[in-house]
Parts: sequence; C-alpha cells; structure tokens
Amino acid sequence: MKYFEDIRVGDTYAVGRYTFNSDEIKAFATRFDPQLFHLDEDAAAASHFGALCASGWHTAVVWMRLMVDFRRRLTDEARARGEPVAGVGPALGFRELKWLKPVYVGDTIDYASEVTETRISNSCPGFGLMTLLSTGVNQNGEAVISFLSTAFVERRPGAI
Amino acid sequence: MKYFEDIRVGDTYAVGRYTFNSDEIKAFATRFDPQLFHLDEDAAAASHFGALCASGWHTAVVWMRLMVDFRRRLTDEARARGEPVAGVGPALGFRELKWLKPVYVGDTIDYASEVTETRISNSCPGFGLMTLLSTGVNQNGEAVISFLSTAFVERRPGAI
Repeated sequence: MKYFEDIRVGDTYAVGRYTFNSDEIKAFATRFDPQLFHLDEDAAAASHFGALCASGWHTAVVWMRLMVDFRRRLTDEARARGEPVAGVGPALGFRELKWLKPVYVGDTIDYASEVTETRISNSCPGFGLMTLLSTGVNQNGEAVISFLSTAFVERRPGAI
Repeated sequence: MKYFEDIRVGDTYAVGRYTFNSDEIKAFATRFDPQLFHLDEDAAAASHFGALCASGWHTAVVWMRLMVDFRRRLTDEARARGEPVAGVGPALGFRELKWLKPVYVGDTIDYASEVTETRISNSCPGFGLMTLLSTGVNQNGEAVISFLSTAFVERRPGAI
C-alpha cells in the first residue's frame, strides 16, 4: 500500500472480479446462512428471489478475500521496484452495508473501492485514517452491494 | 417469529453461543481472509493481536448462522403449539458493524439481539420493520462485535 500522504480522495482501486457458482453459493450457505433460497434451486424459484442466489454475507466476504489479494499484489509490485511499503492496520468495522440486488448463479461481480475521506489519526499519530466506499457491480452494471470502511494507513517516515 | 404487532422495543433474543476453535478459524481465513494472524500461530504471536484470532467476518457470519437456527427453533415451537408463524423478509444490510475486541482460539461468544426500533413499512404495508442491535460477548464479559440490522416482519392478519 501507499503511504497515507500519497493517498488522495477520489483514488479508486479495481479490487477484483468474481463469478459466483452454484456449488460455492450452497457450500457457504450450508455453513453460515442455511436459508432455502441459498441452498435449493426449486425452493429459490418459489421464493421472492425467483432463483438461487448467494447469501449477502457471501458477497461481502468475497470482497475481503479479493482485497487481501489486491493488497498483496500491490505490496509485491512495490517491493519488486525496490520501493518501501506502508503498513495497513486492522479494520475496525464497517458502516452502511447495503445488499442492493440479489447475486444469482453465474453473476460476475466487479468490486471497486474509492477513497472518500482521509485524516490523520488522533489516537495513533503515526497513522492516517482512510475511508473507502466499496461497491460490487454485476455484469449488467447494477450495484449489488456497497459499504463504507475505515482503515489505518502508515504515514510516510519523517512526515510526523 | 412473532407478528410485528407482538414485538416490543426492548425485547431481547438469546441467539446462541459458539466456541471458536483453531481449525475453523484457519479454514475460514484460508478461504476468505488469508491474513497471517488468522492463519498461523507464530505469525499471530508476533502481530499486534498477540495470538491466533478469528477474522472479524467470521465472527459476523457465525451470528447469521445462529440467527437462522434460532428463528427455525422459534418457528418449530410455534407450529408445535398450533400457533401461526409470521414471515420474515430479507435483510437489506447492516449498519455500524464494530469489531471491538479480537476473538481468540477457545473464546466462547454469546450472541444476543435486542429490538431497538419498530415501525410500519411505508413501501410494504403488510410488513413492519424491526431494528435489532446485535452483540457478541466473550466469556470474560467483553463485547467483541456489535451491529445494527433492520428486517421486515409480517403484520398480523387483519391488523392492516
């Protein structure tokens, strides 16, 4: 990741893309969200969703996985260029998570995150706080999930 | 579930209890949050967490699983008494999700949900909206997660 001083409001990250298949939708739902419209095609067809669709929690945790991979790629690329790499602190939570549309079998979701706010941390002066608006958009251009998160990002050495 | 008219602000549900073991913490993290402090005891010991701990998303989706089981028990019990069962609509999202403390291997989390607001839906007059404040508390009485969610609950037939 970049240092806090190099992050600008409006910066946008193409976090990753994922296609939801029926086996993974059912496997996640069996373990964490065993409602019939996430488990069984016929029951889903008779539900208000009309077809098998992923647990909303599944669409959220796929973002987490893609974000971990995305940060790792950025870190590896920076190291390959001989550049220093800023540390990222733990996430403290999420706000305003909205499931806007169902995610059906075969839907491909593009996840992106945009920097909407930056400020220096009061409690940890070596870190800044970056707020991201993250969204998932399906192959028809419809937003299916959105949420806000705030993470600690290391400040450039000597910036304090 | 009860009908909307039978739900009161302040009603509290003991949703369920779950003990996080190391195999499940690692299996979830391998798939959805492969950061070293969720995967490897030694790396976790050297991190700011100090020991292997569950992904925050893992502590959230366990609530979902327990809530599905809890609702199913309530429904089965009501049917066994010959009572009608109110439908629950899909969740639209959640707000203010906070990871307040790490969840370490062996921690037992008690999840509870309290009704904090009720109102009739403007868009779907056959339903009410129930807002829940859900929390997870560990065996030392420390809150580890909290969030707000709002769900549709069917109104009593004849109440409209």
